[in-house]
Parts: sequence; C-alpha cells; structure tokens
Amino acid sequence: MLTDEYFMRQALAEAQRALAAGEIPIGAVVVLDGMIIGRGYNQTEQLRDVTAHAEMLALTAAANHLGNKYLTHCTLYVTVEPCVMCAGASAWAQLGAVVFGAEEPKTGYRRHALGLLHPRTKVRAGVCAADCTALMQSFFKQKRG
Amino acid sequence: MLTDEYFMRQALAEAQRALAAGEIPIGAVVVLDGMIIGRGYNQTEQLRDVTAHAEMLALTAAANHLGNKYLTHCTLYVTVEPCVMCAGASAWAQLGAVVFGAEEPKTGYRRHALGLLHPRTKVRAGVCAADCTALMQSFFKQKRG
Repeated sequence: MLTDEYFMRQALAEAQRALAAGEIPIGAVVVLDGMIIGRGYNQTEQLRDVTAHAEMLALTAAANHLGNKYLTHCTLYVTVEPCVMCAGASAWAQLGAVVFGAEEPKTGYRRHALGLLHPRTKVRAGVCAADCTALMQSFFKQKRG
Repeated sequence: MLTDEYFMRQALAEAQRALAAGEIPIGAVVVLDGMIIGRGYNQTEQLRDVTAHAEMLALTAAANHLGNKYLTHCTLYVTVEPCVMCAGASAWAQLGAVVFGAEEPKTGYRRHALGLLHPRTKVRAGVCAADCTALMQSFFKQKRG
C-alpha cells in the first residue's frame, strides 16, 4: 500500500489545491516511516513570495513536526522536479530521498549541475509522471487560452 | 552615505543578532531606492528549519513589504556568499543585485555552477569582507573552544 505511487498521489492532491487557487499546480508531501509529516502546495502567487514553493512549505512543516531541521530519514515526494532553491533546501535538510513525478527541463535542478543534493539523498524520478505532467499542461493551456 | 558599505554594516548588525542567538552569524538586508525594506538573520537553529537563512527571511520580508514577489529593482546585501538555495530564491525574485561580504568556498553558490542567479542580477563581492569573515571565525572558534 505505502508505495511511491501512493504518496505521489498525495502530492498530486496537494497540486490540485494549488490549481484550485490559481497557482502553478505543484504539490509535495514529506514522509517518515510511512506517515506524512509535512504537506505543501505552490503558493507563490497567494503569498507573493518566491520562496513559497510546495517543497519548501512541506520541508518546513516536516521540520516543525519533528522539532528537527534534519530530515535524514524522510522522503520528499513532489509532483515536479525541484528547482535549484528547493534542491538546496533538500541538501541542507540532508533528506533521505527525493521522489519526483514530471521532469522540468527548464528550471529543474538537474539542468544546472550535478551534486546540488546531499550525497546521501537518493533520487527516484518519473513516479506518476504522466498525471503530474498532465496537470501542469492543463494549467498552462488554460492560462494561454 | 548610501554606499554598499553602509548597507553591509546594516547586514552585519543583523548578523550580530544571529550571533547573540547562538546562530551562525549571517545577516541580510534588502534595499530599494536607498531604503531597507527587508531584514533577516540566520535562524535555522531557533526555528529548526533549514530554509530560515538570513537571505530567505529578508527576501520574504521585502516581498511582503512590496506586495510583489519580484524584486527586480532591489539589492540584497548579505554578509556571506549565498548558498545554492538562496541563490535559487534570488533568481526567482529576479533580484537587481546581490552584494556579499565574505566568500564561502565550501557552500557558496559560485562553487557549484555558474548561472544560478538571474542573468540580469549584478553581483558585487567582498564588501566589508574582513569584518564579515571575522564574525564567522569568532563564532566557529567559540564553538570549538
């Protein structure tokens, strides 16, 4: 039950909340021992704050929950490949793993350089990628239309 | 009067607040048209949150002040070279300029890759560098001692 796909569906539910708020639909959850301990969805427009990415809010929520800034045994699930800022935050948190859905060739952290994440952080890409991508595409199609 | 050094002294005052709180002493201010519109000092220990770097808090404060997530005409003054996370946030904010004091060869953004900042963001390094470095060194010497 507690598969990558299960938790990515939870991140997708967060992304839907972003979409409903008129935000670029990206969602994230942080999981420890099979439990979600942090959630976030992109709120950069609502908060008028570039730092309010889904991942940042989920990481902060998880750290608050644990009372610990290090998330060594946690996994971040996020619907889209993290940007440089969020990769940097994940590195500082020494995340156990990052799992993302859709690739982000323009602004994703993997475009810029290798080694942005903590060396111990495992990465799994492409989980529910089609659904994550479809959500992003529907948002941008609607914006343009 | 409103020189880079003047505003770096303001960032150093923020760094002193971090030091007084037992944090790694890094401070930042965001300036627009000669006015400070955001301040921050490193609070990662107090808030138990890796995202609570001086720069992030100052950028968020400035965006709140303006009601705008883009800080195109603003300058970020920070006592130490920003990390990848803070460089990423600066890029999203499309900052006009980043001015920093001490270089940070281990975790500074310039170590990882070029092009992490927005292409329009100007960079000036080494402002009050001796004082910024001395503050950092006194903290780590005290920690070790």
